[in-house]
Amino acid sequence: MHLSYLAVGDELLDGRVREANLATLGDHARRLGLSVDDASVIGDTNQTIVDALEAASRRADILVVSGGLGPTQDDITRYAASQWASSPIELDEQHLSNLRDQFEARGFTFTENNRRQCEFPRDADILASDVGTAAGFRLVHNNCQAFFLPGVPSEFRWHVDRFVIPRLQEVSDGGETPTESLTFLGPGESGLENRLQSVLEKGRHEGARISFLANSPLVTIEVSATDRSVVDETIAGIRERSGPWVIASNRESPAEALARRLESAGATVTAAESCTGGWIGKLLTDAPGASDWFEYGYVTYANNAKIAMLGVSESTLEHHGAVSAEVVCAMADGARSRADADWALAVSGIAGPSGGTDAKPVGRVHFGLAGTDELWHHRATFPDRGRAYVRRTSALTAIAGLIWRLDDNLDAHDWSRIH
Amino acid sequence: MHLSYLAVGDELLDGRVREANLATLGDHARRLGLSVDDASVIGDTNQTIVDALEAASRRADILVVSGGLGPTQDDITRYAASQWASSPIELDEQHLSNLRDQFEARGFTFTENNRRQCEFPRDADILASDVGTAAGFRLVHNNCQAFFLPGVPSEFRWHVDRFVIPRLQEVSDGGETPTESLTFLGPGESGLENRLQSVLEKGRHEGARISFLANSPLVTIEVSATDRSVVDETIAGIRERSGPWVIASNRESPAEALARRLESAGATVTAAESCTGGWIGKLLTDAPGASDWFEYGYVTYANNAKIAMLGVSESTLEHHGAVSAEVVCAMADGARSRADADWALAVSGIAGPSGGTDAKPVGRVHFGLAGTDELWHHRATFPDRGRAYVRRTSALTAIAGLIWRLDDNLDAHDWSRIH
Repeated sequence: MHLSYLAVGDELLDGRVREANLATLGDHARRLGLSVDDASVIGDTNQTIVDALEAASRRADILVVSGGLGPTQDDITRYAASQWASSPIELDEQHLSNLRDQFEARGFTFTENNRRQCEFPRDADILASDVGTAAGFRLVHNNCQAFFLPGVPSEFRWHVDRFVIPRLQEVSDGGETPTESLTFLGPGESGLENRLQSVLEKGRHEGARISFLANSPLVTIEVSATDRSVVDETIAGIRERSGPWVIASNRESPAEALARRLESAGATVTAAESCTGGWIGKLLTDAPGASDWFEYGYVTYANNAKIAMLGVSESTLEHHGAVSAEVVCAMADGARSRADADWALAVSGIAGPSGGTDAKPVGRVHFGLAGTDELWHHRATFPDRGRAYVRRTSALTAIAGLIWRLDDNLDAHDWSRIH
Repeated sequence: MHLSYLAVGDELLDGRVREANLATLGDHARRLGLSVDDASVIGDTNQTIVDALEAASRRADILVVSGGLGPTQDDITRYAASQWASSPIELDEQHLSNLRDQFEARGFTFTENNRRQCEFPRDADILASDVGTAAGFRLVHNNCQAFFLPGVPSEFRWHVDRFVIPRLQEVSDGGETPTESLTFLGPGESGLENRLQSVLEKGRHEGARISFLANSPLVTIEVSATDRSVVDETIAGIRERSGPWVIASNRESPAEALARRLESAGATVTAAESCTGGWIGKLLTDAPGASDWFEYGYVTYANNAKIAMLGVSESTLEHHGAVSAEVVCAMADGARSRADADWALAVSGIAGPSGGTDAKPVGRVHFGLAGTDELWHHRATFPDRGRAYVRRTSALTAIAGLIWRLDDNLDAHDWSRIH
């Protein structure tokens, strides 16, 4: 079974809009043990679309086409489809009447343009939409079943769920493929692969599909196989050999992994943020339910905020500078006691692009982690891949520190216990 | 000039990773008055890559290839490129020595796998990277200049800026096409288009390219034309007709637009965040230089944090609930005086998915804005398109409120002055 995807739209090629539907289709296919075999993005020109449909339909058993079904003059996919399949355009009176009703119900004016959305190749099955004005359609030609779907991501997803998935389920061997994943912070992709060579080979030999996903500083290893025990054994092997860097499993985000541990420990956390400016708090509250373990966050971007909000002493700031072990430890201590939390994360660093010196370059970040009777410090120098990279890596490293502490293996990392 | 793009990676086809580099390349090309002409996404199979390179290079004058240059077994683009161009692979000793040094400096172990990243087709120019371990390379074959770049978005962008843009500048008619943009918060795409119909028609008639980019709740209108005065007149016409919703121009982010205004006013701001959990602080500090006007941020996720950090009274919380005009105004007042700032933004709302009631549904968010002698309140009920949507929209609305106040047109919006 060959599955192809074709996205139509000038706006996808010139950077105004980021193509997002391929990932939606691919994700659905993967869960069924299938994959999109190839994908193309083309512009809004009739001959280009006709040629691309012809080429894709020669390869594919199932072709999903996204975009170009709207009411504007740029939206010409339906006409190209008609030409490709030699199936003349006809106005669908039933759909026209439904669309008029929808517009009336929402208080919109039905325009001449909207009539275009009721035109379909004569041989098409109309895939009616509840979510928008653009209905998709299905057309079989060159032994290829082609689904023409709207490009707006929410409408595309709706059509995929309703019309494409059932077709993919028919051709897939049956149900979802067992899949597990582990997420690491610290070792690069190649370092992990080296350590894991024998486990990966054994897993692949037994039929597992194993893939690395790098989203620096995170690396996720995903294992899937039709046999669940192969997945479980391979994941166990990876855990055993990969060293202490696991922070999350099963495609959890780092914050979700921390949440799970805090919930089971009945513990709370607070954050004292300088260079991350609120990013840790944002991550911690991305998932619902954070109010069970997160109450207070301190964004102390300036020195006077570190003094006033966290009780860092002026002389510590003067002697050591804001980006120092001493200050970040005082931030963690101050935050923990003021928020009356079980744990406090603190971060202070140089995110750049300016502000770096030889002694404290851009990418230098200090971390503090305070608990009831303990205080930890970590110093990192992240590669200067831009301000956003340094800040995101800092926020994730702070979260990872507490995950490792709650897993009782912070000792195995480059964090030093101050007391 | 035909520009093609090819992304390599199974993870892009099966939904594990969202392809993001086409938009980066397209955006750069558009600013130079060029466009990507076609784009494909293919899997990590040698013959597939060789075939795709052959097909693309027959069409394209410039081809940008992304992905498959990493150290793992899946990363085979360099070998496929070698086969395509009949240019044997050779180990580059200079790059090997640099890479070893980089690894050593960071305290990482250099592995056998990393040697792969020092192998290049013999005829390639190596495009060395400061940002990561994967160096790109350039290879000319079939009269096509092909750039092979790493797939990690930050590394791809670095290589594009440094190596591809200069080449595109050479072939573009002469520098950047005059382009301006306006960003709106409030009206939807179709609402704006309706209001602006005559201005848009006039601009297009005079040769402007006008496009809408919706990234809800923001809409950006971009106008470009070879004649700078057509751009200026069209932008002026849009400003005049579009109502009071402009928050940024020239593709500034909302936070950058606010920064510009605060800097010229010599004013400072603080934020008191409940449902946004730090997201406002994160946005405000995304751009460098925020320390000039942002010192303190209060993440008061729990009621007791609102009391302790901001001095909100227990009885106000009890009588009105945390999501209320009274509480959010007390938060803004408390934050402003405690941070000794000129302005304070405060947000409290119901981000969902749970916690909504008939009286206070998911999406209900209150905003407070405090200045030296003034206090404003705004209540919104955002569509429940998920927790992330409600939170991001809340953070952006808070920032927009202060932008409008500094532009002296907050009166034109649905914000009420309390005193």
